[in-house]
Amino acid sequence: MNTPAGLSRPVFIILAEGEFDNETSKTAASAIRYLPDRVQCVIDSTQAGRTSQQVLGFGGDIPVVATLEEALEHGERSASGGISRAILIGIAPQGGALPAEARALLLRAIDVGLSVWGGLHTFLSDDPEFSAHANQAGVALVDLRRPPPDIPVATGRAAASSAFRVLTVGTDCNVGKMTVSLELRRLLRERGVAANFAGTGQTGILIDGHGIAVDAVVSDFVAGAAERLTLDAAEGADIVLVEGQGSLLHPGYSPVTLGLLHGAMPQAMILCWMPGRPSIYGGNYDWVTIPPLDQVVRMYEEAMSWVIPPFRSRVVGLAANTYDMPEEEARRALEAASELTGLPATDPIRFGAEPLADAVLAESAVVAAAAGGVHK
Amino acid sequence: MNTPAGLSRPVFIILAEGEFDNETSKTAASAIRYLPDRVQCVIDSTQAGRTSQQVLGFGGDIPVVATLEEALEHGERSASGGISRAILIGIAPQGGALPAEARALLLRAIDVGLSVWGGLHTFLSDDPEFSAHANQAGVALVDLRRPPPDIPVATGRAAASSAFRVLTVGTDCNVGKMTVSLELRRLLRERGVAANFAGTGQTGILIDGHGIAVDAVVSDFVAGAAERLTLDAAEGADIVLVEGQGSLLHPGYSPVTLGLLHGAMPQAMILCWMPGRPSIYGGNYDWVTIPPLDQVVRMYEEAMSWVIPPFRSRVVGLAANTYDMPEEEARRALEAASELTGLPATDPIRFGAEPLADAVLAESAVVAAAAGGVHK
Repeated sequence: MNTPAGLSRPVFIILAEGEFDNETSKTAASAIRYLPDRVQCVIDSTQAGRTSQQVLGFGGDIPVVATLEEALEHGERSASGGISRAILIGIAPQGGALPAEARALLLRAIDVGLSVWGGLHTFLSDDPEFSAHANQAGVALVDLRRPPPDIPVATGRAAASSAFRVLTVGTDCNVGKMTVSLELRRLLRERGVAANFAGTGQTGILIDGHGIAVDAVVSDFVAGAAERLTLDAAEGADIVLVEGQGSLLHPGYSPVTLGLLHGAMPQAMILCWMPGRPSIYGGNYDWVTIPPLDQVVRMYEEAMSWVIPPFRSRVVGLAANTYDMPEEEARRALEAASELTGLPATDPIRFGAEPLADAVLAESAVVAAAAGGVHK
Repeated sequence: MNTPAGLSRPVFIILAEGEFDNETSKTAASAIRYLPDRVQCVIDSTQAGRTSQQVLGFGGDIPVVATLEEALEHGERSASGGISRAILIGIAPQGGALPAEARALLLRAIDVGLSVWGGLHTFLSDDPEFSAHANQAGVALVDLRRPPPDIPVATGRAAASSAFRVLTVGTDCNVGKMTVSLELRRLLRERGVAANFAGTGQTGILIDGHGIAVDAVVSDFVAGAAERLTLDAAEGADIVLVEGQGSLLHPGYSPVTLGLLHGAMPQAMILCWMPGRPSIYGGNYDWVTIPPLDQVVRMYEEAMSWVIPPFRSRVVGLAANTYDMPEEEARRALEAASELTGLPATDPIRFGAEPLADAVLAESAVVAAAAGGVHK
C-alpha cells in the first residue's frame, strides 16, 4: 500500500459531515460494509443520534455523532487499549480543498494523537500545517491516493498473463464497480477459485490494504498503473478482479476508464449501472444521457477491440445498484436489462452476485478452451 | 506558458545525442522547422560535421557538432550579444531518467551560464543537483511539461464554445499531429480566418509559447486540461486547432487521446498516419497492428459519439507523414487512403495542407448551417 510499511490498520472515526448516506460518501459506506469492526463511529452533525443501520440500512449499531469531541468520548469507552485510532476522511469536497471546519477538526484530532487517513487528490502530507502538527504529535498522515513513483508506460503485457482478467465497468461513476469486484472475489473464493482483487481507487485500497489510485496517476502512466496492478494480482491467481473506475461516457473521467481497459486487458467485463439514473451523476453532466445498456455493452467491447485483436473481450454480466428502488421495481429493471442484452443481471448486494460468478466462470472456461488464441 | 513570466525565448543549442533524425527527436526536428532562427546548433556526435539540411532535409546550415564545448564556440561566433542562450533537451530517454553523460553535459552548460529547457516527465527543477547549479549560476530551468496546479475536472463545456473545434488524431504517436495543426493554422490565417492553435505537448508549447502538456496531467484532470486549453484558444477565434496526442489504439497512451477528445469536444478531426508503419511504433507494440484507415476513422467518430449526442463529430481529412517514402509511392498511398475512406488525403509538408484547410472550412460551414443542433 501507499502507506508507511508496517503501519497497521487503526480503528477509524469517519468524518462524513453532511454527506453520510448511501450515495455521497462512498468511502464511509464502503468502510462500514467491508471493515465494520474497524469503524468506531461516524461524524455527521446532520444525522447525529442515529445508527449506521438507520442511515444506510447496514452497519448495525455504529453510531453517528455530531462532533469530534463526542467521537473521542465514544472511543474511550469502546476502543481496546492496544489499537491506535485515526480519522478517516469520508467527505469529497468539490475542487479538492477541505472546508475550513474540516481542517480545524482534523488539526484538533492530530493534536490529541489521532492519525489521519485521506483519499483526496490534495495530499495531506504535502500540507505544511498538517505536516507540522503531525510531526509534533508523532502521528501519521496516510494519503491513500498518492501513487508510487516508478510506474511504467503500459505495453499490453497484462494480455499475456495466464490469469483470467475481469474488469468492472459502468455507465457512470459511483454505481457499484468496487462492490461487485469485492463480492465476486468472496463468492469465487467460497467456490475454491484462487481469485484476487486489484484495488484501483482510494476506497478499494483502504479495504484491501494495497493498490494504486489510478485516477491520481499522471495520464501517460495510468494504463501502466492498471497493468502493474493486474500483473501483481495475477501472481498465484486463477482469476483477477480489477476494480473499475469512471465510465467511457463520462466527459471528465473517461480517460481513467480507458486506461483501466487497455492496462488490465480484461477478457471479461461486468457492466454496472443504476437503473434509476437517466444521465451522468452530478449537476454538470445532466446533458449526458445514459444510452440503453446494449449500446453501453457494445461501447466497452469496441474500446477493448482497439488494442487486442487476438481475443475478444466480452461483457458477460450486468450488476445494478437498486438501493433507491422498491424491490418489485428493482426486479423489473433487472429483467428488462437482461432481456435487452441477453446477459444475466442482478443487484449483487440485494439479490446476490451468484449469476455473475457463474458468468465469469463460464467465460473463463470458454477462453481456456480456446487456448492459443491469446496473444504471446 | 509553464515558464517564469516574462522569460523571453533564448537561442537554443539542442542536445540530441544519438537521436538527431526525422523520427526519434521530434523536439529537435520541430524546433528547427518552426523556430529556425532560434536554433544555433545541434549536439549529436554520431552526426557531427553535417548540417540540419543534410540530416533532416530542412533547416539549412544549422550545424551538428560533437560536444558542448564545440557548440559554445559556435555560439561565440554567431550569437548576437543581447540574446541569452539555452540548452534544449532533444532526447527522450527510455524510463525518463537522463543518461549520465547527458547529466554531466547539462551541469557543465549550467555552470557556464546557459539555461536548460526540457520536456521530460522528470522535472529539471525538482532535481536537487540541477537546482543547486542553476541557483549558483543564476540561470533558469524550464520544464515545458510541468502542468499548472489548478486544472478542473472536465464538464463538457468546450462543446458550448462558438469556435469551430478541430482536433488532430492519429493511428499512433509521432505521426505528425502537431505539424498538421500548425500548418492548418498558417493556411487558415493566410485565408483570413481567425484560427488559433492549442498546444498540448512539450514541443507544441515550445513553438507556440504556451499550452499544457496533457500527458503530464493527473488522469482525473487530463480532459479538464484539454477543455481549458480549448476554451482559452477559442477566445476571439473562429477556428481552434487542438494539437492531438497518442492514439486510441496505443495501449499506453490511449487515455491521453481520449482525454483530448472528450475535453476538446472537436466537431471535426484530421486523422494522421504514416503509410509505412504497419504496427504501433516501438519494440513493445509490434503486436498492435494498425487497422485499415476506414476502421480508424470509425473508431474516433465512435469515441466522440459517447459524450456528445447532439452533434456528430466527423473525421474530415487524412494527413500522412511520407518522409520515408519515394514521391511516387507516397502519392499512391494517399490515393489509396482517399479511395478507402472517401476523404481528402495529403502529406501537408510534402504536398501542402490545402485539401485539409478546404475540408475544415467546408465542415465548419455545414455545422454553422445546422446551428441550434449544438447542445446548450
